[in-house]
Amino acid sequence: MTRAASPASLTTPLADLQINCDRLLHRLDQLAQIGAIAGGGVCRLALTDEDKAGRDVVVSWMRELGLTITVDQLGNVVGTRAGLVAGPPVMTGSHIDTVATGGRYDGNLGVLAGLEVIATLNEHHIQTRYPLAVAFFTNEEGARFHPDMMGSWAFSGGLSSDAALAEVETDGTTVAAELTRIGYAGTVPCGSQPVKAFVELHVEQGPVLEQEGVQIGAVTGVQGMSWQELTVTGVSNHAGTTPMSLRHDAGYGASAIAVAVRELALAMGGNQVATVGSIQLQPGLVNVIAKAAKLTVDLRNTDSALLKQAEATLQTQMAAIAAAEGLEITAQSLARFEPVSFAPKMIDCVERTAKALGFSVKRMPSGAGHDAGMIAAIAPTAMIFVPSVNGLSHNVKEYTAPEDLENGTNVLLQVLLQLASLSKAGVIQPSLKDE
Amino acid sequence: MTRAASPASLTTPLADLQINCDRLLHRLDQLAQIGAIAGGGVCRLALTDEDKAGRDVVVSWMRELGLTITVDQLGNVVGTRAGLVAGPPVMTGSHIDTVATGGRYDGNLGVLAGLEVIATLNEHHIQTRYPLAVAFFTNEEGARFHPDMMGSWAFSGGLSSDAALAEVETDGTTVAAELTRIGYAGTVPCGSQPVKAFVELHVEQGPVLEQEGVQIGAVTGVQGMSWQELTVTGVSNHAGTTPMSLRHDAGYGASAIAVAVRELALAMGGNQVATVGSIQLQPGLVNVIAKAAKLTVDLRNTDSALLKQAEATLQTQMAAIAAAEGLEITAQSLARFEPVSFAPKMIDCVERTAKALGFSVKRMPSGAGHDAGMIAAIAPTAMIFVPSVNGLSHNVKEYTAPEDLENGTNVLLQVLLQLASLSKAGVIQPSLKDE
Repeated sequence: MTRAASPASLTTPLADLQINCDRLLHRLDQLAQIGAIAGGGVCRLALTDEDKAGRDVVVSWMRELGLTITVDQLGNVVGTRAGLVAGPPVMTGSHIDTVATGGRYDGNLGVLAGLEVIATLNEHHIQTRYPLAVAFFTNEEGARFHPDMMGSWAFSGGLSSDAALAEVETDGTTVAAELTRIGYAGTVPCGSQPVKAFVELHVEQGPVLEQEGVQIGAVTGVQGMSWQELTVTGVSNHAGTTPMSLRHDAGYGASAIAVAVRELALAMGGNQVATVGSIQLQPGLVNVIAKAAKLTVDLRNTDSALLKQAEATLQTQMAAIAAAEGLEITAQSLARFEPVSFAPKMIDCVERTAKALGFSVKRMPSGAGHDAGMIAAIAPTAMIFVPSVNGLSHNVKEYTAPEDLENGTNVLLQVLLQLASLSKAGVIQPSLKDE
Repeated sequence: MTRAASPASLTTPLADLQINCDRLLHRLDQLAQIGAIAGGGVCRLALTDEDKAGRDVVVSWMRELGLTITVDQLGNVVGTRAGLVAGPPVMTGSHIDTVATGGRYDGNLGVLAGLEVIATLNEHHIQTRYPLAVAFFTNEEGARFHPDMMGSWAFSGGLSSDAALAEVETDGTTVAAELTRIGYAGTVPCGSQPVKAFVELHVEQGPVLEQEGVQIGAVTGVQGMSWQELTVTGVSNHAGTTPMSLRHDAGYGASAIAVAVRELALAMGGNQVATVGSIQLQPGLVNVIAKAAKLTVDLRNTDSALLKQAEATLQTQMAAIAAAEGLEITAQSLARFEPVSFAPKMIDCVERTAKALGFSVKRMPSGAGHDAGMIAAIAPTAMIFVPSVNGLSHNVKEYTAPEDLENGTNVLLQVLLQLASLSKAGVIQPSLKDE
């Protein structure tokens, strides 16, 4: 793999520091063995035995690296490395839970890259001015317990930990019971740990960097997201005997909405995206006009007003389709997050650092939700994206080339060094180097 | 209930004959007790214990009415009443199997109305010139074994009885094994029983008669039917991170086809109908662009050339949608029946008789498949429709008012009398009346 040229514009000795990619890859591989599934993927749903095993391994690595570990009420784990001064840490991290057919990079990279940064600093006996911390947050995926980003949302005080702990899975198990069962029901109250700054390295989970041949994404924020479940109610009838003019076809209504949702996104342009990922017809038989349909609509935009506009357009479309076909169409919100804009200075820092390391870099929003989007509520936050091959994610074929993993982790290292070493005057402070 | 005025244009004494509606309703009610389900519906799937119990009751009624019973290799049951002359019978009948959430009239009415005609003739000691027969055919619904109209298709020699007997249900059971198990594996070869003429009374299963306030439908034929399952293959990806321009969304493809199918039917007009009753997306998650979709398309037309045109238009639409979204779309035929046109003289007979009895009557195609559509291959055939409230069928709420049941059965009686009494000169022959 090609190393980036030594960065010219970073003038401290630390600017030459590089992570050990083989060590990072080894940890990624070891963690991916836990809950491994066919095709190279991983299934470590939150708070399962596999999640516990993954947590135990990561915590053991944290201990080996000398980090001080805290576990909060929701099982969020923070490993902290002391700085020259006390106070809130500069934090990195992500999550290690996966979806049922997940890949090995989503979340895991951000946590293990953090550990790799710590290992690199330890190796070179570098102490930062401010404490550094690596965190992994509980149930980011939301694949087993609602909502997603549960841990980081509670960590940042946005979600009540009592509500999160009481959340029930389909089989009746609660978050609280599962945390206790796997030994990660901590005592530190959620929302009690201040953070000086937060940076998360993550695979893009989309095709943009690869398509444009760009090495690093400097993430400007997280798209706002509106998830709705629509219920279409029509009249079931015989597909052969019911003239077209007398139909109230819920299946047609659902399909017409899905097509309208596509038109909505194309008409709005910009970074508006809109997806109908699930359609279910009742009774779902070849020769019966559907009496009912359920479909989901996922709308995202980086701009709060535009997201609202998309929602309003959908509502207008639904009303028009309902009136034309004689249907009842109702909507229920499944989840809604306002767009998050990261702090401009933090975005600048990622962009500048990546460029200084010789990488091509693109400012871009994140289309997916991330823990960073939650932590942004309490600390200046940034994200670093590295390319996802074919844009695949939540898929056993998720893949990011080792060179890109290395590039991203080196950017993370240099960004964290700057954030943790900054003096009040904003000048990079050379830290203690091994004599 | 209002009796129709005594028909003026039927000049024989038989023209005053009327069926006993209470007796018909009583039999309908008794049969509906077998396999009764909540809401007033019936579940008597073909060749189940419930079907056996229903068959046993109907056969016992046939015996009580003095009919000579034959059971063929596929379990089709024919009860015959001798005529003045020997030879092929004038036949009526239908089926007594139901779908899983069926009503009490679909099929059952045609069989029990036939028995009511026999009972009326017995009561009045009327013997027809030609034999009269009442049949019920095996597995008309196709809800348990493929294909539908299995029994009547084999009875008319169109379907190999060996193939039908070997048909396997999802649990591995065959038609042959189930026929033996319930005691209806007869010995009469399928395709060996000639029929002089066939008339089937059936509920419309559609809304047209009720909407137009018409009492009797004189069915002109059975719509041709083309059932296809389409498979759409796209690329699964993240709903947030994948720009609209880079999507290959199988869910959108399926929806666009469903909307195009509607447009196809509206553009063709006439009696073209088109339905997408089932859509399934994979993986079917709110935030994942579907990688695959399956949907069914049901196309029907009374005209063979127009049905082919509809299929060709669908294929063109599929190709256009596949090209625009970068999808692969393939089609598999699930079933296909050419349109059936009933004999003009038979349609005339139903129309003329209904009018003579004082009923309003409409010539109309059948949108649903029926046993009569199969028997039409070997005998002059007609069908009589009576209104279905709200057009509901294959539904526990299926309902036809007693008055309409009575009207239809009286039309059936008079039509059968004409067909079974006709001399070679085409004049209605007064049959033997009770002295």
